[in-house]
Amino acid sequence: MIVVMNRDATPTEVDHVVQLVREMGLKEHVIHGTELTVVAVIGDDRKKDKERIELAPGVDRVLRVLAPYKLAAREAHPARTTVRIGASCVVGGAQIPVIAGPCSVEGEAQILAAARHVKAAGGHALRGGAFKPRTNPYAFQGMGEEGLKLLAAAREATGLPIVTEVVAPSDVDLVARYADCLQVGTRNAQNFRLLDAVGRQAKPVLYKRGMWMTIDEYLQAAEYILAAGNPQVILCERGIRTFEDHTRNTLSLSAIPELHARSHLPVLVDPSQGTGHARLVPAMCKAAVAAGADSLLIEMHPDPEHAVTDGAQSISPQVLAELVVSLRRIAQALDRSV
Amino acid sequence: MIVVMNRDATPTEVDHVVQLVREMGLKEHVIHGTELTVVAVIGDDRKKDKERIELAPGVDRVLRVLAPYKLAAREAHPARTTVRIGASCVVGGAQIPVIAGPCSVEGEAQILAAARHVKAAGGHALRGGAFKPRTNPYAFQGMGEEGLKLLAAAREATGLPIVTEVVAPSDVDLVARYADCLQVGTRNAQNFRLLDAVGRQAKPVLYKRGMWMTIDEYLQAAEYILAAGNPQVILCERGIRTFEDHTRNTLSLSAIPELHARSHLPVLVDPSQGTGHARLVPAMCKAAVAAGADSLLIEMHPDPEHAVTDGAQSISPQVLAELVVSLRRIAQALDRSV
Amino acid sequence: MIVVMNRDATPTEVDHVVQLVREMGLKEHVIHGTELTVVAVIGDDRKKDKERIELAPGVDRVLRVLAPYKLAAREAHPARTTVRIGASCVVGGAQIPVIAGPCSVEGEAQILAAARHVKAAGGHALRGGAFKPRTNPYAFQGMGEEGLKLLAAAREATGLPIVTEVVAPSDVDLVARYADCLQVGTRNAQNFRLLDAVGRQAKPVLYKRGMWMTIDEYLQAAEYILAAGNPQVILCERGIRTFEDHTRNTLSLSAIPELHARSHLPVLVDPSQGTGHARLVPAMCKAAVAAGADSLLIEMHPDPEHAVTDGAQSISPQVLAELVVSLRRIAQALDRSV
Amino acid sequence: MIVVMNRDATPTEVDHVVQLVREMGLKEHVIHGTELTVVAVIGDDRKKDKERIELAPGVDRVLRVLAPYKLAAREAHPARTTVRIGASCVVGGAQIPVIAGPCSVEGEAQILAAARHVKAAGGHALRGGAFKPRTNPYAFQGMGEEGLKLLAAAREATGLPIVTEVVAPSDVDLVARYADCLQVGTRNAQNFRLLDAVGRQAKPVLYKRGMWMTIDEYLQAAEYILAAGNPQVILCERGIRTFEDHTRNTLSLSAIPELHARSHLPVLVDPSQGTGHARLVPAMCKAAVAAGADSLLIEMHPDPEHAVTDGAQSISPQVLAELVVSLRRIAQALDRSV
Repeated sequence: MIVVMNRDATPTEVDHVVQLVREMGLKEHVIHGTELTVVAVIGDDRKKDKERIELAPGVDRVLRVLAPYKLAAREAHPARTTVRIGASCVVGGAQIPVIAGPCSVEGEAQILAAARHVKAAGGHALRGGAFKPRTNPYAFQGMGEEGLKLLAAAREATGLPIVTEVVAPSDVDLVARYADCLQVGTRNAQNFRLLDAVGRQAKPVLYKRGMWMTIDEYLQAAEYILAAGNPQVILCERGIRTFEDHTRNTLSLSAIPELHARSHLPVLVDPSQGTGHARLVPAMCKAAVAAGADSLLIEMHPDPEHAVTDGAQSISPQVLAELVVSLRRIAQALDRSV
Repeated sequence: MIVVMNRDATPTEVDHVVQLVREMGLKEHVIHGTELTVVAVIGDDRKKDKERIELAPGVDRVLRVLAPYKLAAREAHPARTTVRIGASCVVGGAQIPVIAGPCSVEGEAQILAAARHVKAAGGHALRGGAFKPRTNPYAFQGMGEEGLKLLAAAREATGLPIVTEVVAPSDVDLVARYADCLQVGTRNAQNFRLLDAVGRQAKPVLYKRGMWMTIDEYLQAAEYILAAGNPQVILCERGIRTFEDHTRNTLSLSAIPELHARSHLPVLVDPSQGTGHARLVPAMCKAAVAAGADSLLIEMHPDPEHAVTDGAQSISPQVLAELVVSLRRIAQALDRSV
Repeated sequence: MIVVMNRDATPTEVDHVVQLVREMGLKEHVIHGTELTVVAVIGDDRKKDKERIELAPGVDRVLRVLAPYKLAAREAHPARTTVRIGASCVVGGAQIPVIAGPCSVEGEAQILAAARHVKAAGGHALRGGAFKPRTNPYAFQGMGEEGLKLLAAAREATGLPIVTEVVAPSDVDLVARYADCLQVGTRNAQNFRLLDAVGRQAKPVLYKRGMWMTIDEYLQAAEYILAAGNPQVILCERGIRTFEDHTRNTLSLSAIPELHARSHLPVLVDPSQGTGHARLVPAMCKAAVAAGADSLLIEMHPDPEHAVTDGAQSISPQVLAELVVSLRRIAQALDRSV
Repeated sequence: MIVVMNRDATPTEVDHVVQLVREMGLKEHVIHGTELTVVAVIGDDRKKDKERIELAPGVDRVLRVLAPYKLAAREAHPARTTVRIGASCVVGGAQIPVIAGPCSVEGEAQILAAARHVKAAGGHALRGGAFKPRTNPYAFQGMGEEGLKLLAAAREATGLPIVTEVVAPSDVDLVARYADCLQVGTRNAQNFRLLDAVGRQAKPVLYKRGMWMTIDEYLQAAEYILAAGNPQVILCERGIRTFEDHTRNTLSLSAIPELHARSHLPVLVDPSQGTGHARLVPAMCKAAVAAGADSLLIEMHPDPEHAVTDGAQSISPQVLAELVVSLRRIAQALDRSV
C-alpha cells in the first residue's frame, strides 16, 4: 500500500498513519516529496483492510500495490492450468474446445437432437440449462432434475460431456451427480456461498464473470472457489454492462489477454450472452479465438425460433457447423486447433 | 409487443409472424407503413418470450409495450405501500426514518455503543451485518448467529428495531428469527432463490438494487419476492456501476421519482454504499431526502478508523447527530419529518 | 508518481527507471518491499508524461500522486470563486440563482414570453440556444445571430442577463458581443480549441462536463479555460453516460461535493439534460440544491409540446413557478436562498 | 414512430396525439389493445421531433421505427463503399490495410524512422499527429504545420500515404493540403462544425466514434459528413467508456458486424486507443481482423519509451513486423489479405 497524505497533513497525522501501519504488523517508509508526503507500507498487506487507513485524519487516499488474490495469480502457478471436462474435453491446451447446446433443456427430443447436432458439427461438449435464473419471475425456470437426467441421456447417446448451471448451494450435490462441469452464471458471480459450495466438490467449474465486475474483483471471487479446495476453474468472459444498446452486453475481448497475464487459469468466451443476437455470434466467436480464447460456449438450438428461452441469441445447427469450419482455419493460423 | 419487420421482408415472412403471434394465443394487427411493415400484437404478452418472434425471418426487432411486472406495478395498487419495521419504524409515510449503524457487528461493546449513538442521534432503526458478502475471500465474513444475538441485545437495550443482511436461502429462517427486517444486498439482487426464500417468510425485506440492473430489471426481480407471498418490500437505490472513479458507485437519485412513478413500493437510499466515502455521505443524504426518498440507510461506526469493514464510508456518531438535525430541516421544507 | 515494478524486475530494470526519472529532472526514492520494489518519484511531475515510464522494461504500472491541474485546484485559491453573470446574478455565494428558459430560441414571441415567465417565477437569468449542436444533421440547428438579437431584446424587456451556447472558436466573438455568459456544451467538453477561445475573452463561461469525463479529466479541461486567462468559470454537472435507460443520462450529484472539495470554482447543475424527462426535473432540482449546488440551469418552454427542440425535457411556466417556491424553502433549510 | 399511451389515457388525449401526428404531415393508425392504446405513425418521420409527441398528455413513450440517418444507411447504397487513401491504400475491399505510426510527429528523424519501419513491416499507410487534442493543457500539443511538412517528407521518402488528425474547422484546409486522409478524433466526434467542414473538402475522412456514443448516434453524426458532400468516410471503433479499469477504454468489437449490417461504409479498428496498453494491442488486432475489420490503425513508435505522447500504448517496430506476419495468416484463413 502507498498512503498519500493531504497537502496540509501535519507531522502528527503522519505519525498516526505510521502507528496504524505498525498495528497491522507491517512496516512503513515515509517519503517527503516537494509537495506532499507519502507513506509506503512494506510487507504482505493483501489481507489488510486499507479502509482503516483511508479514514485516518490527513490521508488523501490509499493505493494498493499487491493484487488481492493469491491462488488465482500467475505467480502462484507459472504453468498454465488445464481443466478436463469429462474424458476428452480439455480446456487450456492447444485445442480450443467448442461447447454448444441450447440455453435450456426443454425435453428429450430437443436435447437429443441438439446433442447430435453439436457432435456432427465437431463440438466437444454439450451445454444446456436445467436450473435457469430468469430475469422475469413468470418466465420458464427450467426442468430441474428431470432436465439433468435428459442431459445425462444425451451424453450417453453421443459421448459428449455435459456442462450445466447450478444456482444454489443446496443444489450443488445434485447437479454434480449428473454434470461433467458445473456452471456458475453471471448473476451469481458474487454469490459467495455458491462459489464456496462449488469449491468444495470435485467437478470442474465454468465460472462466468459478473457483468458489473472488474478483472480484479473477478479474480478475487474466483479465489473463493480455489480457496475452498477446487483448482479446476475455467474463467469466462460473457459481456459487461455498458451504455451500448445494440447488444445486450458488451463483450470485452481484451479480458482474454489480461486474464492470461494475471492468472494461470484458462479463459473461455461466451459470445451468445455477450451479444444477445445470433447474427453477431459467428463474428465474435472468430474474434475470441483470434484474441487467444481457450474455449467457446455457444448457444445453439435445433429450432431457435421455437426455443423456450434465449431464442434470439441461439444459432442454428447449420450455422454452427459452418462456424466450426471457419474457426478451425483461424485456429490453424494461430498454430492451435478446434 | 410491436414487431418491426425488415425493409425487405416478404409477405410470407409477415404471414409467418402473424402465425407465431396466434400460436401464442394473441391477436395481431398488421400496419403497412410507407417504408416498412409493423405487426402490433394485441393481448397480455407480459409472460410471452419476445425472443421467439425476434428470430423469425424478416423481423428487425421487437419492442415491448407492457411492463413485464404486475404486482410491483403502480396500477396493481394505486395507494402507496407502507412497510413497518418493528413496532415503531414505518417506511413509506410522511416520516423519513433513518436506519443507521455499522457495516458489520464486531462485538458486544461496539454494537451496543453504535445502537446508543443511533438512538441519541434520533435514528429509527439499527443496521449491522452478521453475514457479510465480501469481495475478498480473505476478508472478515461476519460473526454469524453470534452477531444476530448481539443485534437482538442492542435492540433490547435501546428499543431500536434491527435490519440485517441474509446471504443464502438456508439462512433465511435463522436471520428472520432475530431481525425485524431482512436485507438482500446488491450482489444477491438477482439471486432468485434467495428472493424467493425471503418472499416465503413474514418479515419485511429491504431489497437493494443490483449495481448493474436497470429499473425494469429491478422491478421484475422485486416481483419474485411479491409473487412468493411477501408484500412488504422496501426498494433501495445504492449506486450503480459507471466509469466514474471518484466514488465506488454512482448514486442515481433519479431512481427515486422513477420508482415512485412505476411502483407503489417505498424507496430507501443508501448513500454510504452509493458513494464509498464518508465525506460525501451527508450531502447525498440531504439530496436523497429532497428527491423524495422514504428512508435512509447510513453506515455509522463508533470508531470508523478501527472498523473491521467499510470504515472508509462510515460516518462518526457526531456527524450522524449533526446530519439528522439538517435532515429534519429539509424534511420540514418538504412537509415531511425525520 | 509511484512506479510499481514487476515481481521479477531485475536490478538493471530498476536502475533504468531511476535513470528515466532523473532524465525528467526529478528525484527518486527506491523502496524494496517484501514482495516487490517501488520507485517513488519526488518533485513536481504534473507536467511529465507517466507513459514513458510505464513502458520501461520491468514496470508494472505507474500511479499518479499529484492532481494534474493547478489553477482549478482548491489549493491554488482557498477562497471560493464567485462568478457574476450580468449585473445581478452571482453564482457561488449564498444565493442559488435559477437560470431558466427554452432549449432553443425559436422566435421573438416565444423568447419574450419565456423571459417573462422566468422573471415572474423568480428566476435570475435567461437561457436559450441560438447555435444548437444537434445529434441529427436534419434537425433544427438554431437561429444563429438572429437568435442572439432576440435574446438581447428579451434581456432589454426583462432585465434578465442571458446565457447562451457557443459551438465553434470562430463564433466566440459574435456570441460574446450579445451574451452575459457563454455556455460550452457537453459534446464540446474536450474541444480544446473552443475551451482556449472562450478562455481568451472576458465573459464568464458556463462549462458543462462531458458525459464521458471523470472529475479529473473535467478539471483538467477546465484548466484550459483558466490557463488561457479567464478565471470566471462555472462548472456544470449535466449527467453522464451509463447503462441506465429510464433517463437520457445519469445525473451524478455526488459530483457537487467532490468538485467543491477539489476546486474553488462554483458548481451548477442541469437536471433537464441530466434526466431528459420533464417529470423528473423538479425532484432533481431539489436534490441538487440539497447536495450543495450553487445554481440551476432549467429548460422551461412557454408551450413545451410545441417546442422545436428538447420539448420532452422542458417544464412548463407553471411548474417552474411552483418549483421555485419549493426550492426557496429547501434553500432556507440550508441557510441559503434562491 | 409508435406512440404508446398511458393505461388511463382518455379518448380526448388519443385524439390530441392524432392531431399532432397530422400537423406533422403524417398519418396515424390507432390500435386499441386489451390493456392500452398505441398510435402507429405512418410516413417518413425521420426528420420529425418525437419529443413533441412525448410531451402530449396521456403519452407514456414514443418508439422510433425508422433509423434517423439515410445516406449512411445500407439501404441507401447496397454495395459496400471502398475508400482510397493516396494511390495505393484501399479500405473496404478484400485487403485489410495496416495504418501505423507514432501518436505524434516529434521531429524529422523520428517520423522518417517510423515511416521506414512501417514500410518494412508491410504497412500500407503512415499515421502521425501534428495537431494533438490533449487531456492535459500542459502536455505537448503537437508540432502544427511543421509536423505536416515532416509527414509529407516521410511520404516522399517511403511512398506511404499519410493519415493525420484535424481538430478545428479553421485548420481543415491546411491539413487537407498535406494529408491523404483527415482523421477526426473521438473527443471531436460530436463537434458538428468540424464534421461539416471535413465534409466540404475532397480528402477521405477517418472518423472515430465518440467514446460515449451509441451506434445510432455515431451513424447520425457520420451523416453530417456525408450530407455535406463527402462520401469517403471510414468508420472507426476505438473503444468506449465503461467501468472497466484494466484498459483505458473497452474495445467493443461487436461494433464491426453491427456497423456492417447497418451501413455501407468501411470499418476500421484502433486497438491502441482501444486498450491503452501496448501489451494488449497484438491480441486485439488479431481479434479485430477475425471479426471482420476492414483496416487497422496502430500506434507504433521507433522508441516507445521515449515517445512524447501515448508511449504506453505504442508497440515497437519489431512487434509490428511480427504482428503483420500473424495478421496475414489470419486474413488468409478468412479469404482476405493484409
